[in-house]
Amino acid sequence: MTTVEDRLRVIEERQALQDVLTAYCTAVDSLSDIDGLLDCFTEDAVFDLSGIHLPRFEGQAQIRKFFHQVFADMSHHAHYNTNFAVDELSADQASCRAYVTGMGAAKDGRSVLVYVQYHLRFARTPSGWKIKSFSESPLMPLPPEVTGIHARG
Amino acid sequence: MTTVEDRLRVIEERQALQDVLTAYCTAVDSLSDIDGLLDCFTEDAVFDLSGIHLPRFEGQAQIRKFFHQVFADMSHHAHYNTNFAVDELSADQASCRAYVTGMGAAKDGRSVLVYVQYHLRFARTPSGWKIKSFSESPLMPLPPEVTGIHARG
Amino acid sequence: MTTVEDRLRVIEERQALQDVLTAYCTAVDSLSDIDGLLDCFTEDAVFDLSGIHLPRFEGQAQIRKFFHQVFADMSHHAHYNTNFAVDELSADQASCRAYVTGMGAAKDGRSVLVYVQYHLRFARTPSGWKIKSFSESPLMPLPPEVTGIHARG
Repeated sequence: MTTVEDRLRVIEERQALQDVLTAYCTAVDSLSDIDGLLDCFTEDAVFDLSGIHLPRFEGQAQIRKFFHQVFADMSHHAHYNTNFAVDELSADQASCRAYVTGMGAAKDGRSVLVYVQYHLRFARTPSGWKIKSFSESPLMPLPPEVTGIHARG
Repeated sequence: MTTVEDRLRVIEERQALQDVLTAYCTAVDSLSDIDGLLDCFTEDAVFDLSGIHLPRFEGQAQIRKFFHQVFADMSHHAHYNTNFAVDELSADQASCRAYVTGMGAAKDGRSVLVYVQYHLRFARTPSGWKIKSFSESPLMPLPPEVTGIHARG
Repeated sequence: MTTVEDRLRVIEERQALQDVLTAYCTAVDSLSDIDGLLDCFTEDAVFDLSGIHLPRFEGQAQIRKFFHQVFADMSHHAHYNTNFAVDELSADQASCRAYVTGMGAAKDGRSVLVYVQYHLRFARTPSGWKIKSFSESPLMPLPPEVTGIHARG
C-alpha cells in the first residue's frame, strides 16, 4: 500500500523536476547565467537540438560553448513551458515532456519563434535532479529562419 | 478538522485533473491518437465548441467522428494550457478552468490561432477523472478564419 | 527534521501563491471584476508597471482607478502565466516569479502583446496570501504601441 510518505514524495519529485525545467528556461533567457544553466544538466548530458535543425551536443563543455555563442548573439530570449507531463519516475531517473514556446531576438535584428515539445530524461544526483538527455520536436512548422545560431527552442 | 490524508488527496486530485487536460491537449496535437483523446472523456461527454463557432457534440461517437476529420485535415496542432483553476472538487465531480493557446496548420495551407478559456466539468469514474462537459470561450477576438474545420481551440 | 505537516504545507502554500497569480490574471481579463482583482492585493500594495513604461501605483485606491480606466478602454484581455518559481517562502511572506504573455485589444482598434516576467512579493494575511509588491520586466522587446493605456503585461 502506498504510504503518506510515498505520496508526498511523488508530489515533491514532480515539482522538483518541473523546477529544473523552469530554471533551465530562466537561465537560457537570462543571456548570462551560464553556470545556472549548466547546473540543470549532468556532466555527461546529451543536449540534442537536431529536432530544430541544430547540432547535438555531448557533455557540459560542449553545451557551455554553444550557449556562450548564443548569449553573445542574442539580445532577448523567452522560453515559456507548459503541459508538463511525467512519463516515468523511479528512484534515480525520470522522463518528462513539456511544451515550450521559445522565442528570441538577435543583435543583428533577426528574430525567431518556435513551438516545440521538450523530451527530457533526468538523473538523480547528490545535488538533485539533473537533465541527462534533452531533445525537442517541433509542434508547428519551423520558421524559415530556423537555421544556424538563430534558433533555439 | 482536515487530515493529512484529506490534504494529500486534494493535491493529488488537482494534479490528476490537470493531467487529463494535458493528456487531452497532447492527444489533440498528436493528430493520430484518437483513442487517447477519447479516453479523456466520459462515454456521454458533451463537447461544445459553439464558443468558437463550431458545433456541439454529444457522446464519444460524435467526438470521434469530429476528430477523425480534424486529424485528416490538419498537418500540425499545438495546444498550450496554463492558468489552471479548480472551482469545485467533490468526491465524484469537479469543475475546472484553464487558458489555452490553440493553433493549427491545415494541409491546404491555412492556419489558425485562438486564445480561449476552457470550461471543464469532470466526473470520477473507475478509471479516473474524465471530462463530462467541455466548452470554451474566446479571450481574444477570433480570427476571421475561425469557421468550419479550421478552428479548434 | 522536516515533518509531513511541514512538507504538506510547503506544497499547499506554493499552490496558493500561484492561485493568487492566476486569479489576478483572470480578473484582469474579465474586464469587469475589479473587486476580485483588488482582492489579490494587500491594502498598501505597490503595483509598479514602470518596467513596461507605465506608472507605479501605491495602494488599492490607485490600483482601482487605473483598472477602472483600463476596463473602460479595452474590449479583450488575455494574460497567460507559466514558469512559476518560488524564491522565498517564510511564515508570513513569499517571493515568486512567473512568465506572462499579456495581450489586449482596445475598443479603439489598437492591440498590444507583451512577453514579460512578473516579480511578486506576497504577504500572508488573515484572508490568505496577497500581493504586496508587483513589478514586471520585459523578456522580449516591447512593441512600439506600449505607451499609455494600451500596455499592460
